[in-house]
Amino acid sequence: MEETTSVRRKPTIRDVAAAAGVSRGTVSRVINGGHWVSPDARAAVDDAIRRTGYTANHAARSLATGRAGSLAFLLTEPQHLLFDDPTFALLLRGAAGALAQRSMTLVLLVAGTPAERANVAHFVSAGHVDGVLLISSHEADPLVEALLEAGVPTVCCGIPLGHDAQVPTVSVDEEGSAREMTRYLLGRGHRRIAMIAGPHDTPGGRYRLVGFRDEMGEHFDQALVEEGDYSQESGAAAMTRLLERSGRIDAVFAASDLMAAGAIAAIRKAGLRVPDDIAVAGFDDSGLAATHEPPLTTMRQPWDRLSDEMVALLLEVIAGADPKPITLPTTLVVRASA
Amino acid sequence: MEETTSVRRKPTIRDVAAAAGVSRGTVSRVINGGHWVSPDARAAVDDAIRRTGYTANHAARSLATGRAGSLAFLLTEPQHLLFDDPTFALLLRGAAGALAQRSMTLVLLVAGTPAERANVAHFVSAGHVDGVLLISSHEADPLVEALLEAGVPTVCCGIPLGHDAQVPTVSVDEEGSAREMTRYLLGRGHRRIAMIAGPHDTPGGRYRLVGFRDEMGEHFDQALVEEGDYSQESGAAAMTRLLERSGRIDAVFAASDLMAAGAIAAIRKAGLRVPDDIAVAGFDDSGLAATHEPPLTTMRQPWDRLSDEMVALLLEVIAGADPKPITLPTTLVVRASA
Repeated sequence: MEETTSVRRKPTIRDVAAAAGVSRGTVSRVINGGHWVSPDARAAVDDAIRRTGYTANHAARSLATGRAGSLAFLLTEPQHLLFDDPTFALLLRGAAGALAQRSMTLVLLVAGTPAERANVAHFVSAGHVDGVLLISSHEADPLVEALLEAGVPTVCCGIPLGHDAQVPTVSVDEEGSAREMTRYLLGRGHRRIAMIAGPHDTPGGRYRLVGFRDEMGEHFDQALVEEGDYSQESGAAAMTRLLERSGRIDAVFAASDLMAAGAIAAIRKAGLRVPDDIAVAGFDDSGLAATHEPPLTTMRQPWDRLSDEMVALLLEVIAGADPKPITLPTTLVVRASA
Repeated sequence: MEETTSVRRKPTIRDVAAAAGVSRGTVSRVINGGHWVSPDARAAVDDAIRRTGYTANHAARSLATGRAGSLAFLLTEPQHLLFDDPTFALLLRGAAGALAQRSMTLVLLVAGTPAERANVAHFVSAGHVDGVLLISSHEADPLVEALLEAGVPTVCCGIPLGHDAQVPTVSVDEEGSAREMTRYLLGRGHRRIAMIAGPHDTPGGRYRLVGFRDEMGEHFDQALVEEGDYSQESGAAAMTRLLERSGRIDAVFAASDLMAAGAIAAIRKAGLRVPDDIAVAGFDDSGLAATHEPPLTTMRQPWDRLSDEMVALLLEVIAGADPKPITLPTTLVVRASA
């Protein structure tokens, strides 16, 4: 498949890897000085580079030497979400701290539109940063592929959907986390449990729903599932739809604290009480959970550790390693809402 | 003065300008290709470059060609202020929009500590951005000088204090704005008017107080002046000090909407009403003013125009022009709080 297209476009690291029968990471390591590569692999890559006619992107090579002294924190969401969704500020604070310790500069890039994503891809591919922390991505986002093709060291926060390529990833155990919250709600005697899931084209949207459905088993009812976009407004709207459509609801599990807060507002607007009439649980423990009235029962994401692991993993990738995905555990935090 | 130090350190554009008897902008234009420079000035600069032994910073030269396709939005405040102070989000949104129209990338840099500012200065001096929008600066911030010395095109938002060099600046008429609000409060019959000023080492802190004092004239009372750091907490603390220390207070003029909101909270805590007992006016019209209870009377800064003018001015500087500072008017917005 790759070979048939090689006559039309400039050969990439991917083409070299296919021709040499090695991973892209190995090709990248050879191009960037040959650290951590066996002599045989090195010879195979050198041979493949000659056969494919591959020429390294010099900007990409210079960035791999680490000279920019900077990493990008790349948010592929509309800019207002940077301010509206507290989880991004938590990750940004952690990443900035991790870079400050290393005397590196954190470059914040926000690309909410396809045009902005193209500009950003151009910017990072030109070597102005040493690597990219990709903070959010929707299924089959072409930006992931563009960064990999350009040889830009990239680490994703959350498993990127729709990419068979192995992208270095730091994420929480989405399915396991959702199962734990669902077990907790079932253990409190709830059976008619609704879920306000995140967008199905995001890993948190998809896999938290998978865990919820698995754990609910025979109690699972598709009519009790609604989807939001993680925002408070979408949580309120989803809850309103659930209340209009469904009969009894014992509890609601929202895939973000913001959506849980929105659901609570909608439940109160309908004249019902939380948790007395309907228990509500969130996900994130993003700060608002503790100060909300009532305080939210939620799954705590390990924010500082997520940032630290992402930065450490990206520096490994920049150094030429081919690290395995990292999955971090979450913690059930029981407060008053469920 | 410059000459005596030239033996100790690498000569800079400033040294060349002094030796040639021209502006730094002229030197910069000669170095970057000689556009917009008379033959005489060019000869004088070439001669001064030889005499001083100046060697251009190649990274700085390459950035002046505009190849990075990006501008930095550089906030020299602690990172949490990016999220806590709504004025930064307003400026960021405007700048991002202005750059998107030009297919350029906005690079957000936050440098709240001296170490972070050093890292950032290194990053931008290396040519990874074409220029810098310097969003906040405190008096004699060495970063301003470092950027100018490195030949990084820079535009300041607000007049940078403690720099005799002429830095391209976009700002509002701080003194005139404060005079207009003070006139309005005097016109409402208030005489015992307090001011919660911003930090005296920021232009908004210093010049708004100057305008207030001038307009108050014989009614000015130094005992009715307190200083905050623009945050809500600092506004509440300043108001509490004013209430403890002073007798009658008719009205308060706060140098930010956040401080006005804090002042209102403190006034209520003291068992008094706004505006019945004490009228409170803010500055910014940053979004919270309209939704606050009561809605805030304030001076509206022209946020979109500030961003647009800053980006346009910076592109002029990058192109080699030596533009004059731009001062924009504000608008008195009368709502319920004063």
